[in-house]
Amino acid sequence: MQSVKIGILGLGTVGSGTVNVLTRNSREISRRAGRDIEIYRAADRDLDKPKGCDTSAINLTDDAFDIINDPEIQIVVELIGGTGVAKELVIKAIENGKHVVTANKALIAIHGNELFELAQEKGVTISFEAAVAGGIPIIKAMREGLAGNRIEWLAGIINGTGNFILTEMREKGRDFADVLAEAQALGYAEADPTFDIEGIDAAHKLTIMASIAFGIPLQFDKCYTEGISRIAQEDVLNANELGYRIKHLGIAKKTTAGVELRVHPTLIPQRRLLANVNGVMNAVVVKGDAVGPTLYYGAGAGSEATASAVVADIVDIVRALTTDPENRVPHLAFQPDALKDTPILPMSEVVTSYYLRIHTLDKPGVLADITRILSNEGINIEAILQKQPEEHEGMVPIIMLTQAVVEKNMDQAIAQIEALDTVPDSIMRIRMESLGG
Amino acid sequence: MQSVKIGILGLGTVGSGTVNVLTRNSREISRRAGRDIEIYRAADRDLDKPKGCDTSAINLTDDAFDIINDPEIQIVVELIGGTGVAKELVIKAIENGKHVVTANKALIAIHGNELFELAQEKGVTISFEAAVAGGIPIIKAMREGLAGNRIEWLAGIINGTGNFILTEMREKGRDFADVLAEAQALGYAEADPTFDIEGIDAAHKLTIMASIAFGIPLQFDKCYTEGISRIAQEDVLNANELGYRIKHLGIAKKTTAGVELRVHPTLIPQRRLLANVNGVMNAVVVKGDAVGPTLYYGAGAGSEATASAVVADIVDIVRALTTDPENRVPHLAFQPDALKDTPILPMSEVVTSYYLRIHTLDKPGVLADITRILSNEGINIEAILQKQPEEHEGMVPIIMLTQAVVEKNMDQAIAQIEALDTVPDSIMRIRMESLGG
Repeated sequence: MQSVKIGILGLGTVGSGTVNVLTRNSREISRRAGRDIEIYRAADRDLDKPKGCDTSAINLTDDAFDIINDPEIQIVVELIGGTGVAKELVIKAIENGKHVVTANKALIAIHGNELFELAQEKGVTISFEAAVAGGIPIIKAMREGLAGNRIEWLAGIINGTGNFILTEMREKGRDFADVLAEAQALGYAEADPTFDIEGIDAAHKLTIMASIAFGIPLQFDKCYTEGISRIAQEDVLNANELGYRIKHLGIAKKTTAGVELRVHPTLIPQRRLLANVNGVMNAVVVKGDAVGPTLYYGAGAGSEATASAVVADIVDIVRALTTDPENRVPHLAFQPDALKDTPILPMSEVVTSYYLRIHTLDKPGVLADITRILSNEGINIEAILQKQPEEHEGMVPIIMLTQAVVEKNMDQAIAQIEALDTVPDSIMRIRMESLGG
Repeated sequence: MQSVKIGILGLGTVGSGTVNVLTRNSREISRRAGRDIEIYRAADRDLDKPKGCDTSAINLTDDAFDIINDPEIQIVVELIGGTGVAKELVIKAIENGKHVVTANKALIAIHGNELFELAQEKGVTISFEAAVAGGIPIIKAMREGLAGNRIEWLAGIINGTGNFILTEMREKGRDFADVLAEAQALGYAEADPTFDIEGIDAAHKLTIMASIAFGIPLQFDKCYTEGISRIAQEDVLNANELGYRIKHLGIAKKTTAGVELRVHPTLIPQRRLLANVNGVMNAVVVKGDAVGPTLYYGAGAGSEATASAVVADIVDIVRALTTDPENRVPHLAFQPDALKDTPILPMSEVVTSYYLRIHTLDKPGVLADITRILSNEGINIEAILQKQPEEHEGMVPIIMLTQAVVEKNMDQAIAQIEALDTVPDSIMRIRMESLGG
């Protein structure tokens, strides 16, 4: 049978990894796909820069449009990233009738709806397993492996840099800023680490997973996003003492009122498998109504781990080349005409329990004032931990775990507590999830 | 579009779960599959016995051949189990041009090669996600999600009963026999628990996973199988003390000499995620050369968890109904003409490190005798733990962890140590795996 010709756009970290994996494992891959896959052409805007792969057998170009317009190429692999030229190239590739494989989470999260519509129209597939959680086949698991389930919620550690920082803070008692500097030196975090630590990268991935889980359009702009830069060493220790760990989670949950879509630091019980995912590793828990909780774990980034997902997508497309487009696996798991507009809940309507850290002056009656305010807002206290006054400061940290309450009530309670004369600092509030049943 | 008609053979635990899931989630499933799936007929040999599902809308029969021979039915779902009539029915269904979905691990592990060959010939698919690790989409993950990888090894907790017993022994200090009796009372273990605790059930599943991972024919008869019934409470405690946990693992590994295929109790480091999979839950670690280690966790048994996998397979087949058979995902991940006959290594050729528990008489020179024998066989000791003499017995337990050595050398060393006058009991030997990189 004739080989399938692919063109790769971008020979950076993931592009080089893809070339390396396709080359090294070509025999296994052909045996699985039933056809040879040929890297027919590759484009990189700077061909003089050394690459992380052997390009001697590849027809190179510095103009990606050469590939998009090459009638020999059936699959375009977009590994440029970003929403600028990458978007333009993907649209043109689809218009030219080519299937697209991409690792571009921002592109899918922000422009996926229009891209999928166009692909549908043209009878081609856009595959994006590599856009979420690197090498973990989480898109495939949700879209196909759990196809019999009504997915109730999912929660994932989907940013390796953030998890590395929180792991180091807990295991070695280090400060946020200190670990962040190391992560940057190690190359985990970008020079501008905002995307990682403020949760934007995780929000891109969560947006994509939520659409696949619930069959809703991509709505990145409605994702609540809160980073980990305010987490203090004392919060990490307090959580530990109470039997929890702090993880930066992306959480999507279907409730009767709508879909929750939120990225924020979260206390989860220590005994959960997800609480024991450490370092740069990623993991996602998916709860289906039939299967119960399932978990998927692996490397969420890196050259070959991400390439693993890219190649799996290529093999999938090769296997389905002769399939009637109507019968291919739908981009967002559900047939597009069936996607319905379930509302995304604003954060103020989300119900969770909370960890509160309140620094109070060491005066009588403070605790009574706080508990009265909470009680008035219908907030029940689950556990309380009153620490010794901090040295040199005369401040008493009060740690509370609350029962579940709607966030707007908690906002009101916090505003009232912060207005107390005896509470000079702002309150640290971290949401909690049991991740149970 | 016309609905796809399926026929279900067997309305026991999994059959009822499948009816329940298909009925409850019919809207979601249709949205995913792009077509309605209709339970057209179901067969059960005892129609008078109450079922775990509503059968009022289903055309029932007590003769499974009615379904196999019904020209309206495109997909036969075999949930009878065993290798007797189930095999006959599956063969006839394939001959009649029907696709088959089965949860039958014994059937696939023992007769899969001939069934797949027949299916290939007839242009139909046999899907068997539910045969391994219940609702965890592990077959799909390996066969499709990791298609770019050369899989190096996999290791799994793939029998919930065994894992429940080992978890209870560790967490509650209970004895094997005691927990087994409870597992039987709870319905986890069969009245004859041999299949679970002696590792035969796990060996069926491991055989299937190994074929998919490495592209080799199914060779259940060559799988080494050792149960957990000899694990004593003291072994569980010793392992803990040394930083390990004992898990009943199915392990498949590709080495230059051949494929290792083995089910046995195994010490693994406590910090591994797999070591923290407790109770009846299942999990499988798969190590690919590109992706690194990945882990898949979930319920390995149960009515709806297993049904989740059955329904996913049905949806997959529905999605691919129009695909040219040549381009469907191959049964064992690799195109059948490419399956090559890599030898399965006999256990004596397998290299692992070991935990040894030796009960010795409390006499001088015993330890020196033992270490001399080990040294003569080229076995290096990694750690040693000499316990206080046991009460009433005057016996001293010596616990050793060794470095990696080929099993036949360990067999020889153990025979020599057991021949010592100072070692009256047989030695407990448990293999160890680091499960690292």
